[in-house]
Amino acid sequence: GFDVALFEYREDIRCAKVVKGRSINLALSHRGRQALKHIGIEEKIVSMGIPMRARMIHSLSGKCSPIPYGRKGQVKPLFVKLANPYQVLGALKMVETYPNTELNFSHKLLDWSPETGTMTFHGPDGAERDFEADLIVGCDGAFSTTRKQFLRRSRFDYSQTYIPHGYIELTMPPRNGDFAMEPNFLHIWPRNTFMMIALPNVDKTFTCTLFMPFEDFEKITTGDELIAFFQKHFPDSIPLIGVEALKRDFFLLPAQALVWVKCSPYHMLDRCVLMGDAAHAMVPFYGQGMNAGFEDCLVFNEIMDQFNEDFAAVLPEFSRVRAPDDHAMCELAMYNYIEMRSHVNSRYFLFRKYLDGALNYIMPKTIIPLYTMITFTRTRYHEAVIQWQWQNKVITRGLWIFGTMSVAGGAYLLMKYRPKTPPINVEELWNRVLALGWLRK
Amino acid sequence: GFDVALFEYREDIRCAKVVKGRSINLALSHRGRQALKHIGIEEKIVSMGIPMRARMIHSLSGKCSPIPYGRKGQVKPLFVKLANPYQVLGALKMVETYPNTELNFSHKLLDWSPETGTMTFHGPDGAERDFEADLIVGCDGAFSTTRKQFLRRSRFDYSQTYIPHGYIELTMPPRNGDFAMEPNFLHIWPRNTFMMIALPNVDKTFTCTLFMPFEDFEKITTGDELIAFFQKHFPDSIPLIGVEALKRDFFLLPAQALVWVKCSPYHMLDRCVLMGDAAHAMVPFYGQGMNAGFEDCLVFNEIMDQFNEDFAAVLPEFSRVRAPDDHAMCELAMYNYIEMRSHVNSRYFLFRKYLDGALNYIMPKTIIPLYTMITFTRTRYHEAVIQWQWQNKVITRGLWIFGTMSVAGGAYLLMKYRPKTPPINVEELWNRVLALGWLRK
Repeated sequence: GFDVALFEYREDIRCAKVVKGRSINLALSHRGRQALKHIGIEEKIVSMGIPMRARMIHSLSGKCSPIPYGRKGQVKPLFVKLANPYQVLGALKMVETYPNTELNFSHKLLDWSPETGTMTFHGPDGAERDFEADLIVGCDGAFSTTRKQFLRRSRFDYSQTYIPHGYIELTMPPRNGDFAMEPNFLHIWPRNTFMMIALPNVDKTFTCTLFMPFEDFEKITTGDELIAFFQKHFPDSIPLIGVEALKRDFFLLPAQALVWVKCSPYHMLDRCVLMGDAAHAMVPFYGQGMNAGFEDCLVFNEIMDQFNEDFAAVLPEFSRVRAPDDHAMCELAMYNYIEMRSHVNSRYFLFRKYLDGALNYIMPKTIIPLYTMITFTRTRYHEAVIQWQWQNKVITRGLWIFGTMSVAGGAYLLMKYRPKTPPINVEELWNRVLALGWLRK
Repeated sequence: GFDVALFEYREDIRCAKVVKGRSINLALSHRGRQALKHIGIEEKIVSMGIPMRARMIHSLSGKCSPIPYGRKGQVKPLFVKLANPYQVLGALKMVETYPNTELNFSHKLLDWSPETGTMTFHGPDGAERDFEADLIVGCDGAFSTTRKQFLRRSRFDYSQTYIPHGYIELTMPPRNGDFAMEPNFLHIWPRNTFMMIALPNVDKTFTCTLFMPFEDFEKITTGDELIAFFQKHFPDSIPLIGVEALKRDFFLLPAQALVWVKCSPYHMLDRCVLMGDAAHAMVPFYGQGMNAGFEDCLVFNEIMDQFNEDFAAVLPEFSRVRAPDDHAMCELAMYNYIEMRSHVNSRYFLFRKYLDGALNYIMPKTIIPLYTMITFTRTRYHEAVIQWQWQNKVITRGLWIFGTMSVAGGAYLLMKYRPKTPPINVEELWNRVLALGWLRK
């Protein structure tokens, strides 16, 4: 029932000859799908993407091992890799069907007033144009212009943090007209302090993204150094990407920075509210950025119903309810930044993954892997974190008790049925205990 | 040897009829004094302030108990409460004596260019004026305009956090021509979730500052509610401030917010560096804000000598060396925000204060109270925090071992020399052990 005007800085993608910007890898999972479902476009959007079933870990030797996202056969397709701009085009066509919606492209927001709700735009004709609104919803990304007005006010908490890693994108072309690697997988080359990932596109290419500390990027200055680096760390990817394409793509642009933005509150007076990356930009390692943004809309909609669309009540409630969840998700994305590039190499991590899955099978309501809660449910993000910390405590304690009892029982049996000869080699026993060290956290 | 031009937004304090802004309580301690000493104005500035010897804790009943800042007779005057604007005037007169220094007041910085070093000011005549510099030193406070240019660049980490408490200032007039309470003390009324402090001024008044959650300020809307609140929590202060003055000052302005700013790096290219509150605004509870800012100058000067005044080398080194120290100090100030209003009420805190002092007397180089390291030495802030955490671990463990041995020894003696009659009352013994609970951390 509201009249909606959309203002976008970029030009109209429906008329554009060349689409500017990068083909960002967007992962759509349960939360995002629920939001799309609510407006009746879930199936349409999902059908344009590529379903992802598991992670595929590439070891140094080139061996590939899949790690499923959830328990076997639980939910599938588990998540969908969207191929911007196809879905954006699809969504715009849906918007056009609403008579109370106006689309304005090539409009750059210069400033806006919280008192009057007047926004000043720099239009496509070069002239300034004012537009007045009862409610301004700022969904203008990590470097939000809407948010600047918030920063001028007192009692607005804000942080922007750049991680020490940058990224570079490489394209892996199709091979014999088909995907060069198995599609339907998030391919990962974890190398502890850095990693490469690859996600499939609808045109049968893969977009490979290399995440690495900026200082390591700076060490690679020539094509030969680059090839030597790939030979050492990602040998299986060289024939798939191609030596020439690798050299061309790598030096095309400098490594790009990754920022993490948190703020609170999300609203100003009864006039403006921030959503999506403008409110909570996160590092991309959990594939939740777009999903959290779409869920913002769902949560906002729920609160709008609850408070009869009274902005003066809805906006503060949205800040109160939603900010702790988004903050928790931003921190989890940072945590996954470490998990993806190093934990997946650890035997304890794989053992815990297996154990958590088994416990989830036995007690599906008590032990739920964190990834499952985040990706396949609408459990509030901050509650998922609390539940996860509790589970970790219980499982770690259980392992310790089990370990201690096993050792004690083993010692008892050893003492009771000790062989006459040969005698126990204490040193060897000790070495075996040490080798079990990887079981410790 | 450098030509220095100073630009200040406010008008020239030497010509001003009315000095705008608040009479902020500025505490000058060792670090700030060292910086002043370096430029030969320490004694001049210190002589204009009021020396502080201890904290004076006001209990609910009106009882006053001093808590000295360091070990008895260690350093005095321990810190000096500056009476802005007298010292600013004194400092300006010193600056005037340098022929290579130019002072520009009523100049508002609009923007500046990192490429050319051109700053654009709005001058006192209303016209815009450009000024070019090789090095721009931004010391323009917590809401720094210089810093805005940093925020537009990639890889600049920044956070601003408002604490839930606001503050209101009240004036306690002189009594019979003299201070109404003992001067040379930082008076504190700690009330756990809120507190009032009072610091003396050279005109024999006290400036009282009430720190309290905003939501509690909002509950006090009438003069009667205010008096009832003071009767309940600060009864001894009412006759000293006066009922009418209290009602007048309290409602003069809304409660003011307190912000905490961290950022990194402090420099941009070889062109600009941030210092003082512009780089690290902190909550005022450790009295280190100005001292940290003055120490920035000392550290910068040391690095300038080390790198032969080569800005391209000096600026990154300053960011690298200084930011971790300022960040540690910002966090300590937040910690003291809790210590001042609640820990000083705890018996364990007072016991530890006494114990730390005693241990410091026995081992003056091994156990140094945190407050001493921060306020009376130039130990790097972040090293002081590491040292403090180590000391806490050692002392807490020592107390546990001592406690356990005492209990064991006591039990042994009890068993050995147990009286025939009356028998041990186990329940009473247990209650006594529980009463010792406050010894635990």
